[in-house]
Amino acid sequence: MSPSTVLGYAAPAPGQPLEPFTYQAPDLEDQEIRVSVTHCGVCFTDIHAIDDHFGVFSFPLLPGHEIVGRVTETGKAASGHEVGDLVGIGWQGRCCGGCEWCEAEQEHLCQEIPSCGTWTPYGGFASEVVVDGRFAYPLPAGMAAETAAVLMCAGIAVYPPLRLFATGPSCRVGIVGIGGLGHLAIQFAHALGADVTALSSSPGKEVEARRFGADHFVVSTDREAMAGIEYGFDLLICTAHGGIDWGTLLMSLRRTGRLVLVAFSPVHLEAAGGDGGAGPLVDLIAHELSITGSFLGSRADMREMLGFAQEHGITPQVESMPMSRVNDAIRLVRENRARYRVVLVNE
Amino acid sequence: MSPSTVLGYAAPAPGQPLEPFTYQAPDLEDQEIRVSVTHCGVCFTDIHAIDDHFGVFSFPLLPGHEIVGRVTETGKAASGHEVGDLVGIGWQGRCCGGCEWCEAEQEHLCQEIPSCGTWTPYGGFASEVVVDGRFAYPLPAGMAAETAAVLMCAGIAVYPPLRLFATGPSCRVGIVGIGGLGHLAIQFAHALGADVTALSSSPGKEVEARRFGADHFVVSTDREAMAGIEYGFDLLICTAHGGIDWGTLLMSLRRTGRLVLVAFSPVHLEAAGGDGGAGPLVDLIAHELSITGSFLGSRADMREMLGFAQEHGITPQVESMPMSRVNDAIRLVRENRARYRVVLVNE
Repeated sequence: MSPSTVLGYAAPAPGQPLEPFTYQAPDLEDQEIRVSVTHCGVCFTDIHAIDDHFGVFSFPLLPGHEIVGRVTETGKAASGHEVGDLVGIGWQGRCCGGCEWCEAEQEHLCQEIPSCGTWTPYGGFASEVVVDGRFAYPLPAGMAAETAAVLMCAGIAVYPPLRLFATGPSCRVGIVGIGGLGHLAIQFAHALGADVTALSSSPGKEVEARRFGADHFVVSTDREAMAGIEYGFDLLICTAHGGIDWGTLLMSLRRTGRLVLVAFSPVHLEAAGGDGGAGPLVDLIAHELSITGSFLGSRADMREMLGFAQEHGITPQVESMPMSRVNDAIRLVRENRARYRVVLVNE
Repeated sequence: MSPSTVLGYAAPAPGQPLEPFTYQAPDLEDQEIRVSVTHCGVCFTDIHAIDDHFGVFSFPLLPGHEIVGRVTETGKAASGHEVGDLVGIGWQGRCCGGCEWCEAEQEHLCQEIPSCGTWTPYGGFASEVVVDGRFAYPLPAGMAAETAAVLMCAGIAVYPPLRLFATGPSCRVGIVGIGGLGHLAIQFAHALGADVTALSSSPGKEVEARRFGADHFVVSTDREAMAGIEYGFDLLICTAHGGIDWGTLLMSLRRTGRLVLVAFSPVHLEAAGGDGGAGPLVDLIAHELSITGSFLGSRADMREMLGFAQEHGITPQVESMPMSRVNDAIRLVRENRARYRVVLVNE
C-alpha cells in the first residue's frame, strides 16, 4: 500500500550541503500515520541541526519540521485521521504518554522523548513522513498549506509565551529580530491587543514590520534609540540568533519585566559591564527581571494557535521554492535573506 | 542635640582597606531620623562596593547596610519613631515616593532612587546614620540585635522569592551557596514547609546545613551527585558569588523550574556546552526554565519577613567583633571564612 522508498534530502555529515537520500519506508505502528509531504518550511533550527551545533543529532541528517501533507495511510489505533486529510506536523512527532508532563497534557515537555522526536528516523525535506497521529493537526478550513506549514514551528514558538505573558491591552511588547518567527510574533502580539514594538538590526524592515502590525519600530543597534525606550517594555520576545546587546535589551524592560528566549542566542550576563559600569546582571537583579525559555507548545497549544491564527488572519510572508532547491533555501536562511520564510514544495 | 561629628570606617579608594573617617553629622530633614548604630553586619555586597565592582560608588566609601541602632533624634514629620527605640535599617534608606513603583508600595523598585540609597552620604560602619524614618523598622519584641541586623539584608534578600515561589509542601527547593544568605534561606524554606536541599562546594558544611533545616545536602562540585538529582528542583535560590556550573545547575531543575539569582554571580549560557554537547541555554529553552532576579523587598516585605523570622525562630549564626576590627571582618568575608555572618558591634 505504501511506496517502499522515501526520497528526501539529507546532510551526510555536519555542515555539509544536503544530498538526495532514499530510505526504506517504515511500517506503521498502530498509532502512527503516513503523510505525503506537500510543503515543508525551512527554519533556522534546521541550520543548527545540519551544523550539529548542539552535538545531539545523528547523521546522515534529514531535517525539516514545518510540514504539511496529505494522510496516505493510518495505523490501526490512529483515530481522527482519514486518508486524504490535509495535516500539519511540527517538531514533535511522539511522546512517552506516561510521564508527569504528558499526563498534564504538556507533551512538549515530555521527560522521556525530547520534543524533536519528529525525526524518527527522518524529517520533512522528503516525499513522506511517519508520525504518531496525535501530533498531526488538521488544518483549519481555508488555511493555505504554506501558512499552516510555517505555523507548525515559527507560529507555535511565539504564540504560547505571548498568550501567557502579553496580557492586557496596555501590555508593551517588544519583538526582537524580525525574521521567520519575529514577523509572526508581531502579528500575534498585535492580535492579542498589545502595544507592539519591532526591534531589528535592519532599518529596511520598518515598513514591513508596521504592515505586520507593529506600532513602533526601533533599530536595535542604535544605542540612542534604544536608550529612548529605557524601562519601556513589559515583555520582550527574543527571536534573534545572535548579536544581542543584553545590557541594552534588559535596560529596555520595565521593572519585573520578562525576556522570553525562543531562539538559541548565547546569553552573557556580567555584574560589571565592558565600560566598567554596572552590567546586565545588575539590572536583572536590581530590576527583578526574568529570563524565561519557551519551547513550542503542547497539542492543545497547537490547536489553539491554529484557530487563533485563522480567526485573526495571521499569515506568514512566504517565498516558495521546489524542494529540489533545498540547498538554495538553506543558503537564504543562513544569510538572513529569507523574507520571511522559505517553504519548500513537493511538485 | 546631635553630636556634631560622626566616626566611621571608609575606603579612601577602590579596593583599599578601610580607615577611620569622620564627617559632619547632617541636620535632619523632616521625615528623617538619626540612629546611633549598635550593630552592623558585613555582607559580600560591601566587598563589591569597596572594590567598586559595578563602577557606581563614590569614594571615600563608608559601607555597611545591615544596621541596628537606637533612635537618637526624629525629624518633625518622622512619625512612628521615638527616641530610644531600637530599629533595623537595610540597603534602602529613602525612595522618591512618586513613581509607579513607590505608589504600588514596591519601594525597592523605585525608579528614581536606587534602593542602595541608605548611603546618603554614608553607611553603617559608623557611630550613627541618618535615614528616612519610613525605612527604619522596629525590632520585634525579644529579637536579638545581631539577628535583626543580619535579617536587614541577608534575610530580606532570600525571604521574598521563597515566599513567592516556594509554594506548597511538595515544593523542592535547592539553596545554592551556604553562607550568610544561604544559611538563612535554608531556615526560611524549611519554615515555609518546602523540601530543602543545601548545595555547597564545602562538604564540611553538611552537619550545619542539616541543623539549619536542610533535608538533603549535595556537594555542588560533585558532578555524579548532581547528576543524581536531575530534574529534581522546582526552585533554586542561588546565593553563591561565583564558581557556578550553570549547565549542571539548570539540569537539576524540573521542567518549568525557576532559578532565582540573589547574588551577582556572572551567568554564561551557551547553546553548545564545552564538551560539544547541548549547553545550558538549550536546557533553559527546551525545559522552559526561568532565571529571575530578586533584589531585597518592599517595606511591607521587610515587616512581614521580620515577623515570620520571629515567629519561626529563624536565627542567623553570628560571629560578633568590635567595629574597630572592620578590616579583619572584611577579610573573613572575602575569604569565605565567615560562619555564617560577621556582625560589627559598637562598644
